[in-house]
Amino acid sequence: MSHFDDETRLQPAAPNTWSGTVHPAWSIGDNPHGGYLMSLAVSALRRQAPQHPDPLSVTVHYMKPGLRGQACEVDTRVLRSGRALSTARATLMQEGAARLEVLAALGDLGGTAGASPDAASELTVPPPQMPPPEQCVGRSGDEQGILLPILDRLDIRLHPDEAQAGKAGRAQVSGWIRFPDGREPDPLALLLFADAFPPSVFGLLGAVGWVPTIELTVHVRRRPAPGWILGRFQTSDLADGWMIEDGWLWDSEGQLVAQSRQLALVRLRQGASA
Amino acid sequence: MSHFDDETRLQPAAPNTWSGTVHPAWSIGDNPHGGYLMSLAVSALRRQAPQHPDPLSVTVHYMKPGLRGQACEVDTRVLRSGRALSTARATLMQEGAARLEVLAALGDLGGTAGASPDAASELTVPPPQMPPPEQCVGRSGDEQGILLPILDRLDIRLHPDEAQAGKAGRAQVSGWIRFPDGREPDPLALLLFADAFPPSVFGLLGAVGWVPTIELTVHVRRRPAPGWILGRFQTSDLADGWMIEDGWLWDSEGQLVAQSRQLALVRLRQGASA
Repeated sequence: MSHFDDETRLQPAAPNTWSGTVHPAWSIGDNPHGGYLMSLAVSALRRQAPQHPDPLSVTVHYMKPGLRGQACEVDTRVLRSGRALSTARATLMQEGAARLEVLAALGDLGGTAGASPDAASELTVPPPQMPPPEQCVGRSGDEQGILLPILDRLDIRLHPDEAQAGKAGRAQVSGWIRFPDGREPDPLALLLFADAFPPSVFGLLGAVGWVPTIELTVHVRRRPAPGWILGRFQTSDLADGWMIEDGWLWDSEGQLVAQSRQLALVRLRQGASA
Repeated sequence: MSHFDDETRLQPAAPNTWSGTVHPAWSIGDNPHGGYLMSLAVSALRRQAPQHPDPLSVTVHYMKPGLRGQACEVDTRVLRSGRALSTARATLMQEGAARLEVLAALGDLGGTAGASPDAASELTVPPPQMPPPEQCVGRSGDEQGILLPILDRLDIRLHPDEAQAGKAGRAQVSGWIRFPDGREPDPLALLLFADAFPPSVFGLLGAVGWVPTIELTVHVRRRPAPGWILGRFQTSDLADGWMIEDGWLWDSEGQLVAQSRQLALVRLRQGASA
């Protein structure tokens, strides 16, 4: 078994309710990682709608920080279940308070849902050029003085030109990601990977402080091939302290496997602004 | 008063429940327009969280077609209400069945929520070059033999190179949009405008048939200035019949006012594929 599978496992607690633990390893400083909490909530939805195992569109709103190492419950509700899709929502609760809310469409990426006009008219976003993982820079476990226990669970290698905050001169970060224990990527892992890189604004502004995600939507486009996942994240819209970050994930065969977009706040650390 | 305001007005029906009518004018063929239904649902959320009038992030999942001309109820639930943000969900019901589900963050775009590092490091997406509205082509009220009653409510002018399906040679559509009755744009209207242009894949594939939206997320970035809104929509990811379309809206001062992304299915009409 893998850490990720073990630490997102839930037990049925009541009808439409699943219980588990927010494992302390998946943390940034003292806070559980948002992408991990999203994976926990979606793992409950997959149990609730087993005929549709793949999260096609997942939106999460973060309402209150999670509590690391504490028990959690996920309340699920399947809103609609059709042939191709289930629509469902989930609320992750700890100590009686809702921590995050998820709204998702789940389906089956093993089949063909719609009808492609023809192969020639398919469209995709090709992967960027990237040095191989061994020429990239491991994401540091100590950024801005904050410990990143999650880096025991995720192996993240950043493009050497983008690994140091403020050096790239633009709001972009790219690199490779995988589970260090050999667990291969799947759609649930892509949700986590879509939120595991440093904020792309650090490339432009330096490590400005805290960039809390308000809302994140991930579209999983296909089941990934085994191996490293390549990620790129860019911010092209930053105004009045709010930013939109777009992300793309490709698998080891160069196929686009997910797109992401998040709304986040840029909270300046005292003295961080030039 | 404006048609849009009149026809998205809701009455309190019970705690957390609002009642109204799905007005028949806002239709594509016999089906109520998805963007209009989203605006109805969000107008209930604005009533429920009046201190946060602006929808900052709205995700809608379409579960069942609406019923035009019929009564509707919107069930709302404020999940969290903080200083800067309310997080809330809404379910639009007709004849006892859920038609669409909304998850949203609402705030106040009149103030500054976060802290911009400095004006020089703000980022935005500039508007494209576009011929003025009088040199653009009105969206036709009869596409593929389907009547578009909604064009009595929306004035849409397409870029002359992109107005005819299949002519542009790429999956892009751009143009101008406004209310013909002079009602000025606001954040609620931007939700509607983000879903009011012809599918951008028509530019590449021709009018292939039906492109039902599964899920749409709109981020409103600022309150728009009066006047025309400029929209651009592109698809760069179309595979196995699923597509992701990205959109941008700018106001008459050239400011980016909203971004959108939707997951849709491409359903071929018999004989439409070349």
